[in-house]
Amino acid sequence: MGNDGVGLVTTEYLTIERPLSLESGRTLDRLTIAYETYGKLSQAADNAVLLLHALSGDAHAAGRHSPTDTKTGWWDDMVGPGRAFDTDRYFVICSNVLGGCKGTTGPSSTNPETGGPFGLSFPVITIADMIEVQNLLIQHLGIERLLAVAGGSMGGMEAIQWVLSYPAKVGSAIVIAASLSQSAQNIALHEVGRQAIMSDPNWRGGHYYGGPTPSWGLAVARMVGHISYLSDRSMQTKFGRNLRNNGGAYAFDFSEEFEVQGYLEHQGLSFVKRFDANSYLYITKAIDYFAIDHADAVHAFATSEADLLAISFSSDWLYPAATVKEVVKAARGAGRRASYCEVPSDYGHDAFLLEAKTQTPIISAFLRNQEARTWPIESIYI
Amino acid sequence: MGNDGVGLVTTEYLTIERPLSLESGRTLDRLTIAYETYGKLSQAADNAVLLLHALSGDAHAAGRHSPTDTKTGWWDDMVGPGRAFDTDRYFVICSNVLGGCKGTTGPSSTNPETGGPFGLSFPVITIADMIEVQNLLIQHLGIERLLAVAGGSMGGMEAIQWVLSYPAKVGSAIVIAASLSQSAQNIALHEVGRQAIMSDPNWRGGHYYGGPTPSWGLAVARMVGHISYLSDRSMQTKFGRNLRNNGGAYAFDFSEEFEVQGYLEHQGLSFVKRFDANSYLYITKAIDYFAIDHADAVHAFATSEADLLAISFSSDWLYPAATVKEVVKAARGAGRRASYCEVPSDYGHDAFLLEAKTQTPIISAFLRNQEARTWPIESIYI
Repeated sequence: MGNDGVGLVTTEYLTIERPLSLESGRTLDRLTIAYETYGKLSQAADNAVLLLHALSGDAHAAGRHSPTDTKTGWWDDMVGPGRAFDTDRYFVICSNVLGGCKGTTGPSSTNPETGGPFGLSFPVITIADMIEVQNLLIQHLGIERLLAVAGGSMGGMEAIQWVLSYPAKVGSAIVIAASLSQSAQNIALHEVGRQAIMSDPNWRGGHYYGGPTPSWGLAVARMVGHISYLSDRSMQTKFGRNLRNNGGAYAFDFSEEFEVQGYLEHQGLSFVKRFDANSYLYITKAIDYFAIDHADAVHAFATSEADLLAISFSSDWLYPAATVKEVVKAARGAGRRASYCEVPSDYGHDAFLLEAKTQTPIISAFLRNQEARTWPIESIYI
Repeated sequence: MGNDGVGLVTTEYLTIERPLSLESGRTLDRLTIAYETYGKLSQAADNAVLLLHALSGDAHAAGRHSPTDTKTGWWDDMVGPGRAFDTDRYFVICSNVLGGCKGTTGPSSTNPETGGPFGLSFPVITIADMIEVQNLLIQHLGIERLLAVAGGSMGGMEAIQWVLSYPAKVGSAIVIAASLSQSAQNIALHEVGRQAIMSDPNWRGGHYYGGPTPSWGLAVARMVGHISYLSDRSMQTKFGRNLRNNGGAYAFDFSEEFEVQGYLEHQGLSFVKRFDANSYLYITKAIDYFAIDHADAVHAFATSEADLLAISFSSDWLYPAATVKEVVKAARGAGRRASYCEVPSDYGHDAFLLEAKTQTPIISAFLRNQEARTWPIESIYI
């Protein structure tokens, strides 16, 4: 990309002192929202793009928190001067979701009623509840209308929900590797993860804060997740049947002798260092609850003026092309302008994080059209 | 099928008192083999068909053990008079694999050296070791050459290994939903299951016999397995997003409110009643170790006279058509007669157990050709 991206960034925190009503009928009396912004809001406040993170993401979409950080934000190669979300043109915002564990109120936050952590007394939340919280942030930032909302996986569901919840506030939605409705197979994969966590003896009904955490259960959940994020082919290419050592001879024991086993173990163990098991329960549940039927989706797009860009990846078996196309059908059914691109990729579902080069021209052109209120640069839409 | 199949059957046990050398270099001093037979061995002992079970199967392939049994053997609709494995024509044999927990020596068996259960002191075994044990059974039954060996999933790997281990003893191999080599994705799925078991506090290094069993870890392993045995479409058709109760309203808690969650829980909990967690470790490891390269497979088929029938299922994502075809390529590369059929099915990998109607004419015709030493009834090969 030829530049350093957004450089050093700081996570900011917004506290909301008035109660938030949730879809479950319950209320959160007090709320903290962790967020980051990149680029500058225009005088007319018409260049804001809200990025929406996936299950394990956070507000830190781009840049570094300190010069010694070895890692950048989760979508760093997509956010910065000249990148897909061009910070020379757009005011890019990303916030941690409600229920998360990276600064926004979630099950590990302090319950003002008890003075201790919520744990399982935290209300079960939905994608729509997450959008209510993001809307409070947008109001705080003085933005009445977003040029675009954009995200992959759960972030794509959030983008769809924005059109349903605030049709007048969404100029356009970029929905990547996400569907109108969570499938039975995906619910099942999440359920295995939740069972792994809740059956870990350290979970103790969710009241583990201050003691040993259900790290093993969370690691298993993450391992299951990682298998589903990759494709059969990418795993075969990356690991095949390679052994970690021993010169190609089998160990004839239950050590993690295949490279793919070591990779999974590494993914599981590094995840538990940075993520809260209860947040994993709450966020997967919110995703599993997400189901918009075609008619409701058409109605939402019809009441909005939101253009749509939808992207799928050829080897994504969690949200395959056919399910992503359902979003396009709904937008087109409502007479909205909707572009769709299936990106050929072996990376599976993870492609939304990894395919920066292929996504950049598609998203750049779409955003330029939004900015110019022109439509479309036909040639870019494959 | 219009008949009662094989009717009442009894599991028999063969004890071998001489040591068995294993691929790991270790030895088992004493061995019990659980097996069942259906139909009659011909005078010439030339009508024997050996069935090979999958990960969670056993010797009880067909019939009932008592008139009050509600369940029949695992391949009952494929075995019996007039069925695919026609017991009016063939002497059908099925034995529990080495390392299993249904009568054949495995980790839950008594270690003659200690007088207690083996646990993790049981040697890590391979598919080739399983075939050595089956060969002892075949010798005991007075059979020099099998008309066919046949199995799905791990059973298909066993069929391939028979050709490698005893090329002169195999008249033909029926390989269903199996490949020459376990893939990285499949190793990863097994590894998650093994991690779930080994991290269950009741597992205690495998020494849980006589105390509480690692039932939760085994249930999670089975849940992961079940997701991989089904297809996205079959889960969507069978369960969709149906809720178990509550008139369509979300519970907003972590109960198992979706039907697919209840199904997985049921599968997990019923499995732990009938299967040993250590056997799950040993058998999945044997499958993961299975890897025959093309040249070795060609060589094996070239030294044998075995015909091949390979069957894949269109929605099987564990052993997709492309991997099953590798077996066909090896047999044809050796100049063997090899038939291949991809059965259109939404049942996923489980189709080898469920698609009796579609498999029956294919397998029947193949076996008749073997019997008559004619080849092929072309029309049956789709």
